[in-house]
Amino acid sequence: MHDTLLMIPAGEAALRLEKVKARMKAENIEHIIVRDTANIFYLTGRVFDGFIYINASGNPTYFVRRPNTIHHCKDVVAVTKPESMPEHIDVPQGSEIGLELDSLTYAMATRIMKAFNAKAVNASAVMRKVRSVKTGMELEMLREDGIKHDHVYSKIPSLFREGMTDIELQVEIERTSRLEGCLGQFRTAGDVMEIHMANILAGDNADAASPYDFAMGGQGMNPSLPVGANGTVIRPGLSVMVDANGNFNGYMTDMTRTFACTGDISEKALKAHQCSIDICRALEKSGRPGAEARALYEEAASIARAAGLEDYFMGHSQHAGFVGHGVGIEINELPVIAPKSRDILETGNVIALEPKFVIPGTGAVGIENTYAVTANGLEALTHSPEQITVFLP
Amino acid sequence: MHDTLLMIPAGEAALRLEKVKARMKAENIEHIIVRDTANIFYLTGRVFDGFIYINASGNPTYFVRRPNTIHHCKDVVAVTKPESMPEHIDVPQGSEIGLELDSLTYAMATRIMKAFNAKAVNASAVMRKVRSVKTGMELEMLREDGIKHDHVYSKIPSLFREGMTDIELQVEIERTSRLEGCLGQFRTAGDVMEIHMANILAGDNADAASPYDFAMGGQGMNPSLPVGANGTVIRPGLSVMVDANGNFNGYMTDMTRTFACTGDISEKALKAHQCSIDICRALEKSGRPGAEARALYEEAASIARAAGLEDYFMGHSQHAGFVGHGVGIEINELPVIAPKSRDILETGNVIALEPKFVIPGTGAVGIENTYAVTANGLEALTHSPEQITVFLP
Repeated sequence: MHDTLLMIPAGEAALRLEKVKARMKAENIEHIIVRDTANIFYLTGRVFDGFIYINASGNPTYFVRRPNTIHHCKDVVAVTKPESMPEHIDVPQGSEIGLELDSLTYAMATRIMKAFNAKAVNASAVMRKVRSVKTGMELEMLREDGIKHDHVYSKIPSLFREGMTDIELQVEIERTSRLEGCLGQFRTAGDVMEIHMANILAGDNADAASPYDFAMGGQGMNPSLPVGANGTVIRPGLSVMVDANGNFNGYMTDMTRTFACTGDISEKALKAHQCSIDICRALEKSGRPGAEARALYEEAASIARAAGLEDYFMGHSQHAGFVGHGVGIEINELPVIAPKSRDILETGNVIALEPKFVIPGTGAVGIENTYAVTANGLEALTHSPEQITVFLP
Repeated sequence: MHDTLLMIPAGEAALRLEKVKARMKAENIEHIIVRDTANIFYLTGRVFDGFIYINASGNPTYFVRRPNTIHHCKDVVAVTKPESMPEHIDVPQGSEIGLELDSLTYAMATRIMKAFNAKAVNASAVMRKVRSVKTGMELEMLREDGIKHDHVYSKIPSLFREGMTDIELQVEIERTSRLEGCLGQFRTAGDVMEIHMANILAGDNADAASPYDFAMGGQGMNPSLPVGANGTVIRPGLSVMVDANGNFNGYMTDMTRTFACTGDISEKALKAHQCSIDICRALEKSGRPGAEARALYEEAASIARAAGLEDYFMGHSQHAGFVGHGVGIEINELPVIAPKSRDILETGNVIALEPKFVIPGTGAVGIENTYAVTANGLEALTHSPEQITVFLP
């Protein structure tokens, strides 16, 4: 029997738990039951089917279905159903329990409330907010991702073959990435976003509007998964935007680079690509603790406007309503860099900035980097060359 | 402007809708609001972010966020939030509305109920039951999947290289499958199951218990995704079980085959593999309309017992509690072939049977096929050779 189910050092787990408890106290929530996979991973460094009970001033209880999956650790309570939890913890009848109501199913939430004779309050925001400020160890995980992510991107030019389609290139990028250790999975918050490993957009497919909250769209290969590559042949004059999965350890860096198979990309597209780089350079300075997320968005949009590129900024037929977003265990964390965002940057936030443009006739251009927010501005965690890389035939 | 958002023929969409309405009438549900991606795909042949309102005796209404993603079809009502739905449809105050409470988030369900001043009833089972009996067109989609799935599996022996790890082999299978048109995605019902494209198990990693409802486990490459390949080197004496994604069109066939890099697999493992084939042969005859799912499970388990293999059946350190499951848009549909299942097989069900064994020291052996239930028994949709295929060095 093991002592603990934790797959992160005990001190690290305690630090994360204290962050949650501090937030619980600030919001006057005494009990939280965690079910969401991303939050379970945050609190323990592993994924299991079960629940974590957190008391704002006590020790957590780990409830696990199939406890032999975690080697019968001493700190685990085996349960087969949520109704078995109340006998193991002290939650007075009629209490308010924080539940992740933005991700928990209605059926599960009502079972838990009934089991405890409790009233639910929404704890999704508590967990999102806590996770938006990374610990030192989390920052290290993300730095490690960035290095591997860069390494995969450095190989992309060698994967191109003349006459290739966008999806064929994507498959070779997927293979390279998986051999480098990419886990493949994009964890997303919210109930509808789906994608497989990468969004690779060649030419006007970049202008196919997305049904999801992704920055860019793409028609996809099948209406069951309407995003990304659609079989476009990569030919001279088209841009190829590569936004591929950077999950090598359960955390995700987010990076986009633009490629082209010869140099004859339109002047407008080249200008827009440079504008994207300029926006990143500017926001790297403005992105300090205390900065308003919406001010960063406005700064990005105003640079695009000043360049006369507002019609192409964050899409053409449809415009995404943000220029950046937090990343970590999930691809869409806090803060959100958007016009109506109320988020304020804090030291330890990790954000992806993706000022992208869609130029009709050419395709998508621009870059995306992942950054840690530090007292001196943004620290880049992704470092691949930012200019458009030309595929040699 | 297009006439319709439907990506399946109008007659097919009407047929599926009539099946839902018949079930609604049988269960006395007058209104359903569909949100689940799998159900939206079922009803329209496409995926979008929105809702479908179904009245048991009227026409459906398609509510779509970002309607430019579907080209402003005439039959679409654009909404940005669920609160905008009531003004467009006639649902009396205080009505009962069927919602997919097993998959809908608590937050979204309560927003819809509040918007309509309605009471929710769980419509998840209605949709699951309807989708468990495939239409002729759906069966054709699954047959098409099976042919492509077979084609990918026929290439697996050529992908093996001496000294390869399980994950390296998996990456080559993923690439081959993606180039054949596999979409990569496993849609699953339920709130916790995650996997990336395939479960490939070499040697004793097959005995690592799964936290999920998968038949087999595997430690995985990282605790954030604890399933499947763990980096085991494929060496003589070990079995390699390949259970790889068969989603080429939004529907999924499920198939498993066993490989080995030389012929010296233990006698017990060879016997267990033959037992798996024998179980499939037997159930292909017993699996007729009207058959009880639990009787099929019992027949499979009794064949394993008669062979003295019950300790290894469906796992060794942990035993999966089923031998088969429906497949279609999701990998875990009805009926469930399990000891306590109350499901009765019907013509048009599509099920995967996976009588597998884990033999310590060797690994997982056995096969899995996908079948359509017909009046004459089970029609196989996957046809790859069933004996253990030996990788030649």
